Amino acid sequence: MTVRFACAQIEVVPGRPDINFATIIDAIDKAKAENIDILILPELAVPGYFLGDLWEQPAFLDDCIEYGKRIIAAADNICVIFGNIALDRTKHNEDGRIRKYNAAFIAQNGKLLKGALPYPYIVKTSLPNYREFDDSRYFHSLRKLREEMAVPIEELVKPISITIRQQSFNIGIMICEDGWTTNYSINIPKLLAKNGADVLCNISCSPFSLQKNPKRHQIFGEQAKDCHLPLLYCNNVGVQNNGKNIFTFDGCSCTYQNDGTLLTDSPAYEEHFLKTNFDPNTKLLTNENYIHNNYSEIAEIYNAVSYGTRKFLKQIGISKMTIGVSGGIDSALTAAFYVNLLGPGNVLLVNMPSKFNSPLTKNLALMIAKALKCNYCIMPIQESVDHTNTQMTQTQIHDYESNSTFSLELSPLARENIQARDRTRILAALASAFGGGFSCNSNKAEITVGYATFYGDLTGVLAMIGDLWKNQVYELAHYLNDKIFERKVIPDEIFTISPSAELSAEQTVGVGGDPIVYEYHDYLFRAFIERWDKASPLDILYWYKEGSLEEIIGCQSGIISKIFPTNKAFIDDLERWWKLFSGFAVAKRIQAPPIISLSRRAYGYDHREAQLSPYFSLKYHKLKEELLRN
Amino acid sequence: MTVRFACAQIEVVPGRPDINFATIIDAIDKAKAENIDILILPELAVPGYFLGDLWEQPAFLDDCIEYGKRIIAAADNICVIFGNIALDRTKHNEDGRIRKYNAAFIAQNGKLLKGALPYPYIVKTSLPNYREFDDSRYFHSLRKLREEMAVPIEELVKPISITIRQQSFNIGIMICEDGWTTNYSINIPKLLAKNGADVLCNISCSPFSLQKNPKRHQIFGEQAKDCHLPLLYCNNVGVQNNGKNIFTFDGCSCTYQNDGTLLTDSPAYEEHFLKTNFDPNTKLLTNENYIHNNYSEIAEIYNAVSYGTRKFLKQIGISKMTIGVSGGIDSALTAAFYVNLLGPGNVLLVNMPSKFNSPLTKNLALMIAKALKCNYCIMPIQESVDHTNTQMTQTQIHDYESNSTFSLELSPLARENIQARDRTRILAALASAFGGGFSCNSNKAEITVGYATFYGDLTGVLAMIGDLWKNQVYELAHYLNDKIFERKVIPDEIFTISPSAELSAEQTVGVGGDPIVYEYHDYLFRAFIERWDKASPLDILYWYKEGSLEEIIGCQSGIISKIFPTNKAFIDDLERWWKLFSGFAVAKRIQAPPIISLSRRAYGYDHREAQLSPYFSLKYHKLKEELLRN
Repeated sequence: MTVRFACAQIEVVPGRPDINFATIIDAIDKAKAENIDILILPELAVPGYFLGDLWEQPAFLDDCIEYGKRIIAAADNICVIFGNIALDRTKHNEDGRIRKYNAAFIAQNGKLLKGALPYPYIVKTSLPNYREFDDSRYFHSLRKLREEMAVPIEELVKPISITIRQQSFNIGIMICEDGWTTNYSINIPKLLAKNGADVLCNISCSPFSLQKNPKRHQIFGEQAKDCHLPLLYCNNVGVQNNGKNIFTFDGCSCTYQNDGTLLTDSPAYEEHFLKTNFDPNTKLLTNENYIHNNYSEIAEIYNAVSYGTRKFLKQIGISKMTIGVSGGIDSALTAAFYVNLLGPGNVLLVNMPSKFNSPLTKNLALMIAKALKCNYCIMPIQESVDHTNTQMTQTQIHDYESNSTFSLELSPLARENIQARDRTRILAALASAFGGGFSCNSNKAEITVGYATFYGDLTGVLAMIGDLWKNQVYELAHYLNDKIFERKVIPDEIFTISPSAELSAEQTVGVGGDPIVYEYHDYLFRAFIERWDKASPLDILYWYKEGSLEEIIGCQSGIISKIFPTNKAFIDDLERWWKLFSGFAVAKRIQAPPIISLSRRAYGYDHREAQLSPYFSLKYHKLKEELLRN
Repeated sequence: MTVRFACAQIEVVPGRPDINFATIIDAIDKAKAENIDILILPELAVPGYFLGDLWEQPAFLDDCIEYGKRIIAAADNICVIFGNIALDRTKHNEDGRIRKYNAAFIAQNGKLLKGALPYPYIVKTSLPNYREFDDSRYFHSLRKLREEMAVPIEELVKPISITIRQQSFNIGIMICEDGWTTNYSINIPKLLAKNGADVLCNISCSPFSLQKNPKRHQIFGEQAKDCHLPLLYCNNVGVQNNGKNIFTFDGCSCTYQNDGTLLTDSPAYEEHFLKTNFDPNTKLLTNENYIHNNYSEIAEIYNAVSYGTRKFLKQIGISKMTIGVSGGIDSALTAAFYVNLLGPGNVLLVNMPSKFNSPLTKNLALMIAKALKCNYCIMPIQESVDHTNTQMTQTQIHDYESNSTFSLELSPLARENIQARDRTRILAALASAFGGGFSCNSNKAEITVGYATFYGDLTGVLAMIGDLWKNQVYELAHYLNDKIFERKVIPDEIFTISPSAELSAEQTVGVGGDPIVYEYHDYLFRAFIERWDKASPLDILYWYKEGSLEEIIGCQSGIISKIFPTNKAFIDDLERWWKLFSGFAVAKRIQAPPIISLSRRAYGYDHREAQLSPYFSLKYHKLKEELLRN
């Protein structure tokens, strides 16, 4: 006999159980029409996952339970496995609020199937508390429940027996992290297998990160092989955010055969109905057709940025975008992206030159607008900047302590920042006149060291490329030209000019550029934030001394000695950026726009930060002294 | 015999083990000089507590361990109990990184005393994961260790035997949350008592919140009574932050007698050496003198804002402050606070009138500056605002799709926001010319519903009064006049004029004011955010219908029917603010300055938020329909 499974890779809208309920009912109807026996839906498919402290609001929780009941009632002549919040009103969480479980419900003929727990649902065991995840803040785990019940975990982690057309078999259900067994002392899939599972199923709400899918294929594949059981993985699509980070959900629901091979995938970022047949006797899966995803890394980045931005803007009700274009690569890429997403009529590019902007970049800004066929205007900032400078330096300040007056002076840096902020004056006003929002064009290297002006360039509704290093920005710009527009909407010259903020005579393109040497600093900064064991100045200095730094951080060979003639020059540079990264840049990030998150560590609630004073370790000081003696 | 204990209520600087080590060594020296037998230091006294993901950096952890070793070595002829991070390099946390425990070390004669654990230190059992706490993100708990070891928790939670002058007794050591037993299934103090403790000790790093100290006295007092053991509580002072929230640590280290009475306190926000004598035979504490704190709530608020701001600014290196003064209460209070903290010479007040500002408020701004004897200037925004308005409406925009041009218009709201942002243009430039930062003067009611302009009033280095409701702002202003300055630095008239943003002809003081009716909305908004079970529109509407709303939210009786003539008017108002609170205001808070946190729930990482679409529950819709029918 064959059991017909389907994983419904639906779009889940966080905080909208009403919408998600309607989506789930549609999926159930479709499954019935296609004679599916068991329909699998993602983790927390009713409430969504990243909701912040909305989990504390009883009225919201009540609605999730109510919609859950309606889903159970709709499961007639079909078995539906779905994720939802479960409440035990007789118990409390460790914060004293009502007991909440991240749970999987198995409904058949309007009733819930019960397993080994005192509840008619499965409870998530392993709660992730790293990166963007705060599971322990909201959910009580099976581990804690077991502790209260004082029974061995083996007695609680058991498969559910399901009967389809008079044949019974056992399905072992995991919830997301329960399958990511590497670092936990409890191995849920093995326990399920040991307790008689015939097939495994993992329902997830798992955000996209670069390199995550291959990692999952490795871990889940090994799991299927070790347990000698097939595994169905059901994930949702959509976007969810935790305030500072916008996460995309690529879905990529898939099945693994019992030898660990990846049997079939689902397309990324699309609602999809992944059907697969299971034979309880052979414990093998078969499909009618097979999909195998094969996205390049740059295509994955493009997909995530594109999907994430589109869905997020739609959610917050923005359909038009104003973008400051300087003639540089960051704003050019951002402009091209928005035109592609919103259409040229909904995009307004504005060039905001001061006396320091070169004819070259001003012309490049115009070329982009023409190539993208969108709206364009020029709003110079010089008059306003001059007015601010005059107001600052010529206003008399009265000191009521000594009853005297004085006036102030502006440093060169203060004058640069006035220009950058004056552009926010224009962008914000222009966005409200044009409708919609304005864009933050900062890249990850700039955000790392706060190479941006407070309330100047670090403003906007969304930092679309805020999780991309400068080298990725160039690569993505080529991708847009070559693969998306299939013409040079971003002119060649933008790829070749040196990046420069053009905020002073010294900085104008053709004269001087950014203090960040992206060929090296992109990789240095990446080591600060994205490495598993965050690299500190000690690690960097140690690798520098050993001659392995370039290889370890991944920059081109030979570049370090080209940039730094002496150990002192290297150390000065390292300390300059480290102090900014762990000092003032943190203050800037606290007030920065949300970021579309792509990497294994994005700024925001993914990488959490306190404002601390920059710190250099004991061994760093010692190694530094040693290197400076040589 | 008598054992001489001291709790060293030291200032801990987060992320600076070097500074904390020096402070601890000073405390040990002082303890030796005063013939103390056992010196108790706070939780995580070496690294600090709120460090964000700095916990992931190996070089930082290594330094904490190294300084810990030096403290152990310094514990000769004295017993020192101190909190530090503990590492087990042979194991990992559940995020895969090195195993980290939040631990208490007991050092005597240069060696660590060992208890029931496989480590020479005590491991924190209960890890808080609510409000500002992310313990499970960083630390492995004793509960998880017990799970791995597969032994009953009773075998691991045991007191440590200490010998002082040949007499031995057992000290039961808890780490902070281990003592807050209400909602945990494991009761650490009872286990310690059961396993033979003669005295209990709780080392904490516990931030101040309003109403927290009385709650602790209740819980810890009952604990001491139930266990029939005296309890010493050692907490640190200082400020620590998690990015969005600045928390003050009031210390308030204290001792409880074995009948549960509070024996003696320590002064709030001061380094203090709390000495107490313990008789192991009678199990009683005695002191030479007794302190009993008796702060009013408004004094506690003053102390926290004052201490928090002073310490935080010092930490980030700011000693001068620029403040926009409108003539309203929020900026007046903020100005008075900064003059009190930094001295009048380090404070610059600037009044930034447009044509809509009344002579009344302009004059009040001047009066404040004169009363505070600080620096003052007037920088009108009208010229710049007119320039922006002209630039927006008269610049030709070219549409490269249709090859046509058009121009834009500004809505009344857009014109208001241009004014608010123009003040940031001035404040930011002025702060950089004057030195230091500029202040965000927003109160909690405004922040709740985003009644502030993006990149306008919601900017600055710190939102000093961002966790205070408008009624608390008035109360605190009176307190400053009456108790701190002992003269009317904030003029009477500021207390009596109606609050108004003065951004249009209709809003000018004397004509019209804020849409927020603080006498009611302060309390409504407080119910949204500060109530234990966050009040939703359903709760509010239910209480309204029952006639209990005023009493439940705490506003004055009779006010609701005065403001709202009909059910519809009440519901329209509720929905208006709820949509803002859970909608656009979230976007604004994501980019808002850090807040000095006082209440049981401050915006930031204390109350976490995702950008979601505003949601009204099923029962709300039903109740609304019912009320609109009547």
